[in-house]
Amino acid sequence: MTTYVILAIVSGVAALGLAFVYAGQVHAVSQGNDRMVELAAAIREGAMAFLKRELQWVSVFVAVMAILIATLLEDGWQRSIAYILGATLSFGAGFVGMRIATAANARTTEAARTGGIVAALPIAFRGGAVMGFTVAGLGLLGVSVVWLFLVNVNGMAVDKAAEIVAAIGLGGSSIALFARVGGGIYTKAADIGADLVGKVEAGIPEDDPRNPAVIADNVGDNVGDVAGMGADLFESYVGSLVAPIAFAAIVYSGELQVSAIIFPLAVAALGMFASIIGSFLVKAKSDADLSAALHRGTNFAMITAGVGVLGLAYLVFGDVEGVKPVGIWLAVVVGLLVGFAVGKISEIFTSDHYKKVKGIAKQAETGPATVILAGIAEGKRSAAYSVMVTAAGIWGAYTAGDWAFPTEGGIYGVAIAAIGVLATLGITIAVDAYGPIADNAGGIAEMAHLDPEVREATDALDSLGNTTAAIAKGFAIASAAVTSLALFSTFTKAVGLESINLINVGAIVGLFLGAMFPYLFSAMTIDAVTRAAYAMIEEVRRQFREIPGLRDGDPSAKPEYAKCVDIATTGALREMVIPGSLAVIFPLVIGFIDVEALGGFLAGALVSGFLLAIYMANAGGAWDNAKKFIEAGAYGGKGSDAHKAAVIGDTVGDPFKDTSGPAMNIVIKVMTIVSLIFASAFV
Amino acid sequence: MTTYVILAIVSGVAALGLAFVYAGQVHAVSQGNDRMVELAAAIREGAMAFLKRELQWVSVFVAVMAILIATLLEDGWQRSIAYILGATLSFGAGFVGMRIATAANARTTEAARTGGIVAALPIAFRGGAVMGFTVAGLGLLGVSVVWLFLVNVNGMAVDKAAEIVAAIGLGGSSIALFARVGGGIYTKAADIGADLVGKVEAGIPEDDPRNPAVIADNVGDNVGDVAGMGADLFESYVGSLVAPIAFAAIVYSGELQVSAIIFPLAVAALGMFASIIGSFLVKAKSDADLSAALHRGTNFAMITAGVGVLGLAYLVFGDVEGVKPVGIWLAVVVGLLVGFAVGKISEIFTSDHYKKVKGIAKQAETGPATVILAGIAEGKRSAAYSVMVTAAGIWGAYTAGDWAFPTEGGIYGVAIAAIGVLATLGITIAVDAYGPIADNAGGIAEMAHLDPEVREATDALDSLGNTTAAIAKGFAIASAAVTSLALFSTFTKAVGLESINLINVGAIVGLFLGAMFPYLFSAMTIDAVTRAAYAMIEEVRRQFREIPGLRDGDPSAKPEYAKCVDIATTGALREMVIPGSLAVIFPLVIGFIDVEALGGFLAGALVSGFLLAIYMANAGGAWDNAKKFIEAGAYGGKGSDAHKAAVIGDTVGDPFKDTSGPAMNIVIKVMTIVSLIFASAFV
Repeated sequence: MTTYVILAIVSGVAALGLAFVYAGQVHAVSQGNDRMVELAAAIREGAMAFLKRELQWVSVFVAVMAILIATLLEDGWQRSIAYILGATLSFGAGFVGMRIATAANARTTEAARTGGIVAALPIAFRGGAVMGFTVAGLGLLGVSVVWLFLVNVNGMAVDKAAEIVAAIGLGGSSIALFARVGGGIYTKAADIGADLVGKVEAGIPEDDPRNPAVIADNVGDNVGDVAGMGADLFESYVGSLVAPIAFAAIVYSGELQVSAIIFPLAVAALGMFASIIGSFLVKAKSDADLSAALHRGTNFAMITAGVGVLGLAYLVFGDVEGVKPVGIWLAVVVGLLVGFAVGKISEIFTSDHYKKVKGIAKQAETGPATVILAGIAEGKRSAAYSVMVTAAGIWGAYTAGDWAFPTEGGIYGVAIAAIGVLATLGITIAVDAYGPIADNAGGIAEMAHLDPEVREATDALDSLGNTTAAIAKGFAIASAAVTSLALFSTFTKAVGLESINLINVGAIVGLFLGAMFPYLFSAMTIDAVTRAAYAMIEEVRRQFREIPGLRDGDPSAKPEYAKCVDIATTGALREMVIPGSLAVIFPLVIGFIDVEALGGFLAGALVSGFLLAIYMANAGGAWDNAKKFIEAGAYGGKGSDAHKAAVIGDTVGDPFKDTSGPAMNIVIKVMTIVSLIFASAFV
Repeated sequence: MTTYVILAIVSGVAALGLAFVYAGQVHAVSQGNDRMVELAAAIREGAMAFLKRELQWVSVFVAVMAILIATLLEDGWQRSIAYILGATLSFGAGFVGMRIATAANARTTEAARTGGIVAALPIAFRGGAVMGFTVAGLGLLGVSVVWLFLVNVNGMAVDKAAEIVAAIGLGGSSIALFARVGGGIYTKAADIGADLVGKVEAGIPEDDPRNPAVIADNVGDNVGDVAGMGADLFESYVGSLVAPIAFAAIVYSGELQVSAIIFPLAVAALGMFASIIGSFLVKAKSDADLSAALHRGTNFAMITAGVGVLGLAYLVFGDVEGVKPVGIWLAVVVGLLVGFAVGKISEIFTSDHYKKVKGIAKQAETGPATVILAGIAEGKRSAAYSVMVTAAGIWGAYTAGDWAFPTEGGIYGVAIAAIGVLATLGITIAVDAYGPIADNAGGIAEMAHLDPEVREATDALDSLGNTTAAIAKGFAIASAAVTSLALFSTFTKAVGLESINLINVGAIVGLFLGAMFPYLFSAMTIDAVTRAAYAMIEEVRRQFREIPGLRDGDPSAKPEYAKCVDIATTGALREMVIPGSLAVIFPLVIGFIDVEALGGFLAGALVSGFLLAIYMANAGGAWDNAKKFIEAGAYGGKGSDAHKAAVIGDTVGDPFKDTSGPAMNIVIKVMTIVSLIFASAFV
């Protein structure tokens, strides 16, 4: 079995190596003229300043948690180290993603300027791939190296080792939570602030360099969509590895236990190699081939992984008595199907190729209120459909696992379903992460007053990835629900709960409180965006008022970009602390009072948070694309009343889809994994 | 114990008698000039036409359910008759409420015209009181007469009798569901349709007789706020009686069982007498005394009931071995406190006397998007706080009941907590229901071109009741959650489930689907409003286009009111069928597949629906009052940009607070009670 661990390590190293090569290729390209270099530097500086200050805040949090872990738990200091390692790797993944994104943006612009869209695609894609393979590589290396060290070098018992490995997951989730919340507040506060004063009050176009908030807005795309997403996906990936490992370590024994623990690492290694090869296939010969090129890469990786898992199941479980490997493969396939279906639902509800978004756009004719009502209704409907599919998937994976294993295989089936979805993360993030790079490239083109054709090329590049990105997002959300459910079941085993019985008052009170938490969290994060945006609006108004000639484009009038960047940074960091901390405090407090209540709490938070996450993400996406659909000429196009109504819908959707919604997934998982880690302290 | 049943019957008869007297007093007053008589007749006809057509639709549903009950269940035909009785009484309560409301509206206008606000208050209040005492009287009579007949006349065993009585609750809930959904769609479709074309496009004021939708709008206030609310509160009241009765019949035996079944009837009788006396205290000597007069009545009733229950507990349970009556009283007190607290939270979040609504109004300065975000955040926050209070209350009532009873007293404590809240329903509805009457009176004043002072008087009357109404709404919502929880526990006993174990895949899949349902339901009902409003808008536009001189107020140009009334009626009824039916189909289908999954489903729907109900009700209320706050002069007042932004918020809130939100409470209860009734068929 050690072979598979070593294979996992090799694949992780290969992924990091590939990321290094891609990074070199990106950096080898020109950043364009002085103005572009200057703009890219301003964005990079702002983004790095944010990360640095964020690091200070989260360090305090991580330190407190590390002390709690070290003092309250058995094997405390080992777990504490693993926790810090997870936090460090998660932060590192976000950091690397942001470095490369802020390096690739101007280079993508320049490539689009000189060689058009065919030349720009590889730069943006490689930028995204650096992040993708770094996230996946660090995640897989972290888990497998620690495992090898503890079990094979130190000879530790596997159940002890699994407990320590689980702490890596908590570290990753802690950072991801703050990165998502802080980054999400930053990006939307800057975006709303820039738009409301710039576009609406001053009447200047998006990304106009006269707008003092324009750099902050572009920084926001990086800290929210890149660094936030990097840390987020790192924790999803590690979480999906940790869930089956922790469950197997607690529930199984002997040969079955070892095989069940190694299997996820083997699947991840397979998925990594498939992703690496897939990334070589993303090469477009012509403009018409672009979309196909992206799909080629991801499809190859997914199909290879999907089929290969069947062989792996026989290799790893073939000799274990009473196990039917094909059942395990079926569980993984169910996971892939659910991920795909949830992604497809997201696409149908948020893409303007389908009638949902067109319907929302039509409602813009009767004003903003009907646009918003339509978006809310469609968002809720999409959440309802996604939950039905996921519930069916959970039942399917459970049944497959239950059939495959001689004992208690159901939850293992559910846990392993998630790893199937995330195994090819390397390439799916690459496709996802190149979107913000293209977005930033467009911003630089605008600010540097380049030819409109350049902007068109980057816009085309940006919209290209939308389909694949929507599917990837669906994968991430579905995997979060499934992983949390597996972790939740592991938690009940860890605290020795025979049942979480909804007939008992403790469980039902917990269920109420758990379902409540996502509402509280969502209220806090939306408020945070509104407050931070308000501060930004005041500052932009002040600059327009006090800096003579700024609004009229007098070249001697320089907007104070740094002030706006600073306001967004300070606001986002201050607002991130309370909601982020509550997600850890709530389960800890309830757990020390009553473990069954905590079980109810986790279940309530899981179902309520999952619904809210999809609803908010899809409603936001639908409004965004309804606006774009009108901008493309429908219902009077840009500047019409319908367009104004759609812009209002889009603004409402901003914190929905980029702050509250994406953070919710992590909240669910943080709460479950913190409960799992502290299980022994509760009982 | 029969004494208490007879007392309950006497109090029910007294309530109906009082309602009859009040109705006579209302009808004795003049309806004003010919124009007012004509307008009131048009509203009454439209409302009655809707009720008649609604009756046709729901009759089909009731017939199908009655056949299912009669064929699938033991004692089927008795239960079927009880079901039809419950449905009939519920519909009757709505019908009477609407008759009196459409009789009291013009009379309130006329009283305000001739005698000012002091003269108008008694008319509006008595109109509300007719509905209040009819609802409570019919509910208490229905349950206690059936009980007396079955047990004391026919000598049926109490557990059998309790099963049959429970069917009255299902009948009431079925009607209430359709009345709320249909009425809610009607009122908001008409409101949005009238506003968007009338106020926004044609630039004519609210309630202007030139607007073809104006009668439909006023009819809507009656079918939604009066008939819908009447049926709703009937089912709440009966549900709160049925829950402890059904639980006691299944779980207890001997003397404890009989006492536990009779106690809720005794509490209801006490509350009814207290309400009757309280209603005599609502008399204002001067303008300044109005608010105090309303409070005097409700406060007297609540305090009398709250204290009296302690005595009743000793009378009913004093001789039962092992029971501590003071514990039962404590459970009732906890219920009252929770109801009061949830009401207070609603008030704080929706009244412009507090900073929440002022904060939302302030956000109107930066446009509609920030108003909407602020309202959504505050609505969610209010839901979170309400759930925390309710969860604490459930724990408290459970603990009190558990301590009071020798065995399994916890859930009885929870069930009895709800009856405490609803015992004084007679007077609380009176205060709640006079709002729509005052609202309609204002509409008639406007349409009949009366002196602006008359409108001011009715507006003052309307806003007066807001505080008490908000508290009453909180009571209703909190009681719904508590009643559902008690019914849910009774269901688990009825199907013989030892546990609903969230570690089992069936329960967790059920939990996901249950939490999902309110989202689906909410999406469907919001869409329904949008669609029906759209049809209305088209019709109003057509009339303005095709009827010459209508917009300019040419007296020979007559708007076709009846067409708009017909469109709203048809739209509302068509849209009501699917969401309403799904609320019954879902639990039945799941129950026949897996009973534990149904348990999870009910729990998920309870927590998710409760949160959504409060969130939507309070967000809607907050937007409404933020708009009114601006109309009163803040941030530029009427016609300012801030006002326009606030109007958009209010429109978004319309289906939130008047369609989806209020229906959600009934959905939760319908699903639980249908599961309880069909329990024996599932297993």
